[in-house]
Amino acid sequence: MAFVVNDRSYDPPDRKLVVICLDGSADEYLDAAFDRGRMPRLREIAATGYRGLARCAMPSFTNVNNTAIVSGAPPAVTGISGNYFLDTTTGQEVMMNDASFLRCPTILAAAGGEGSRVGIVTAKDKLREILSSGLTNGITVSVEKAAELDMSAHGFETAQTLVGEPGPSIYSADASLYVLKTGAALLERNLADFLYLSTTDYIQHSFSHDEAGALEFYTAIDKWIGRLVDTGADVALTADHGMNAKHLPDGSPNIIYLETELTAAFGKGINVLLPITDPYVVHHGALGSFATIHVPSGLDVTTVKDRIAGIDGVTEVHDRETAVRLLELPGDRIGELVALSGRDVVIGKTPEHHDLTVLEGALRSHGGRYEEMVPMILSRRLSPDYKAKAMGDLRNFDVFDLICNGTEGK
Amino acid sequence: MAFVVNDRSYDPPDRKLVVICLDGSADEYLDAAFDRGRMPRLREIAATGYRGLARCAMPSFTNVNNTAIVSGAPPAVTGISGNYFLDTTTGQEVMMNDASFLRCPTILAAAGGEGSRVGIVTAKDKLREILSSGLTNGITVSVEKAAELDMSAHGFETAQTLVGEPGPSIYSADASLYVLKTGAALLERNLADFLYLSTTDYIQHSFSHDEAGALEFYTAIDKWIGRLVDTGADVALTADHGMNAKHLPDGSPNIIYLETELTAAFGKGINVLLPITDPYVVHHGALGSFATIHVPSGLDVTTVKDRIAGIDGVTEVHDRETAVRLLELPGDRIGELVALSGRDVVIGKTPEHHDLTVLEGALRSHGGRYEEMVPMILSRRLSPDYKAKAMGDLRNFDVFDLICNGTEGK
Repeated sequence: MAFVVNDRSYDPPDRKLVVICLDGSADEYLDAAFDRGRMPRLREIAATGYRGLARCAMPSFTNVNNTAIVSGAPPAVTGISGNYFLDTTTGQEVMMNDASFLRCPTILAAAGGEGSRVGIVTAKDKLREILSSGLTNGITVSVEKAAELDMSAHGFETAQTLVGEPGPSIYSADASLYVLKTGAALLERNLADFLYLSTTDYIQHSFSHDEAGALEFYTAIDKWIGRLVDTGADVALTADHGMNAKHLPDGSPNIIYLETELTAAFGKGINVLLPITDPYVVHHGALGSFATIHVPSGLDVTTVKDRIAGIDGVTEVHDRETAVRLLELPGDRIGELVALSGRDVVIGKTPEHHDLTVLEGALRSHGGRYEEMVPMILSRRLSPDYKAKAMGDLRNFDVFDLICNGTEGK
Repeated sequence: MAFVVNDRSYDPPDRKLVVICLDGSADEYLDAAFDRGRMPRLREIAATGYRGLARCAMPSFTNVNNTAIVSGAPPAVTGISGNYFLDTTTGQEVMMNDASFLRCPTILAAAGGEGSRVGIVTAKDKLREILSSGLTNGITVSVEKAAELDMSAHGFETAQTLVGEPGPSIYSADASLYVLKTGAALLERNLADFLYLSTTDYIQHSFSHDEAGALEFYTAIDKWIGRLVDTGADVALTADHGMNAKHLPDGSPNIIYLETELTAAFGKGINVLLPITDPYVVHHGALGSFATIHVPSGLDVTTVKDRIAGIDGVTEVHDRETAVRLLELPGDRIGELVALSGRDVVIGKTPEHHDLTVLEGALRSHGGRYEEMVPMILSRRLSPDYKAKAMGDLRNFDVFDLICNGTEGK
């Protein structure tokens, strides 16, 4: 049942497969938990299978990378370059939280079409909708709608009845655990054999890698990874993006208000769009390390670019053409310019635009290059060819290639 | 005995201190060894003390970062921006392998001046010379000259008599182990109490993180770290830079011959200098992910910059002013432009310039952004203030600040 999606071929072995996208899981989180003996199951997998680092799709955001992972392709192909973009034909800022914006087929839909029993479990329902694009016969569940979505066609009432407990708040550690619990239930009841499980990064936005809140979370995650492995499935784990503290020593967010600075320099008319923006602002206050900049026609783009490049904390600024080439972005869904900021810096629009009171604790966020490297773990050893491949510039959106084509004992 | 060096103050606790710079030790090497139970001592330290990631000085080269670490300052202050630079006053390419090029005092010399018994141990002798700059009363040893340097002033004949075995070849795992053995001997015989131990990256240039050659090396390293810890000293470990495979799937080096490309575009006269170049070419064939470009006066620098930026595999190119600001480089020791290449790409000069036959195995190297993040481990917990600091944009050249000022129980 080999199939081709987005010019890459997949030939899954005759085993149950589970790909986990552990949202916001910078490698340091695994290190801290492993070192303290808090993740014995995943550590064992890492030691006997494969563990390395992979480079995510830019910007290092959730939907960008989840869609890249299930497509095996970068945003230039998927079209998903953030949660928001400016539709220049209508002048409207559009939320890209919808499968209609996805420009390519997914590996999940193709596997389903070839007879795999596909299961998709996400924390947020909007992500479930996007990831289910084109899937005609799989089981798709979100924690957010665990009690609502009718699953009677699959032999159980709702996700809640399957798991045996109510779906928790999206703003909790339990939301991510519930994703894995649902995945384990689907495997244990033999309801699916090709799973994609995508958690949420509430904990990583809240805690540094070695804080108790993170360690407890990863301890619990490990138990459920163990359950997944115990079903005999091949398990792969990666992340959509890393996570860094983005605050000053006094705890206040370290923000470049880019639209404010550009308006002061060039007058009104420049629109700074923050594609991290989503309805879940408690996580990050719509503050990340990536922005797209729409420059009105009267202004010279290079002059604006040079101005942005000189701002302290900005690490990269690219014109559209360069961003398409270097960051693999879809040119029609970014501005004339895109900018990235440093390890401890976020880009905001204007002070008025951001309600910092919604932030719970000090700001931790992502979006830039310092959240680009993420873990890649497989429960099975790689074949020599894929070992060589993994040694190169491995991407997180190669994970289905690795688990379908690259493991030993196929 | 607090002292100030390069505008930062250091107030060492009344304990023996050891800072280890584990050359080329990308965090993946520690992960692979930790996961397999091969480094129980360092893992224990990481779990009970502190472990996180730090950002190194750019370019991600050995001498650049060793001098930054012992100075607590970036290359803009130390002046050491590589192993080579073009002296534009003489037109000569100059090897910066000499303390006369260091532009600032070191923490080691200052600690020695305040009465600490300083010990410096390196693999290569040239690095020992640079790091010993200004040190009047310490013990400095290199593996390369373990049998030659006269140590009779310190109560032992040579490093070889101290360690009790001959100094090994620089091109070996043993060279790095010998550094740690010498450090342990200095502590155990109570000959020093403020140590800087700097290994060599022959193994990391030769082996990927999970290959047997690397795992065996780190297993042996761990034993000697244990010996150091057993002396009761506070131990800090960081790295000068990471390491990545820089070859194509067929094993051949993935090289941009930048001077060749620029000569084809602009004619003769552009000089691409590779500051990784040193006498130890077996490691890397003078191929790294960083170059400085000298543009003759007749050519427009921006035109050359734009050309370089368009080359596949180039990730960043900066004019001098931007390189000084963004990469913290000394403006008079770089060219009109500097360029960085990707995770699996190196920059060469011309095919004729590089003797690829000297390479032992497939090329692994460093110099760019993808070798920028390195481990930072301390054997003692950080105070709350320093914990907060470590959560931000921690640098590897903060390591003496951390071990002197930042640990609990001072």
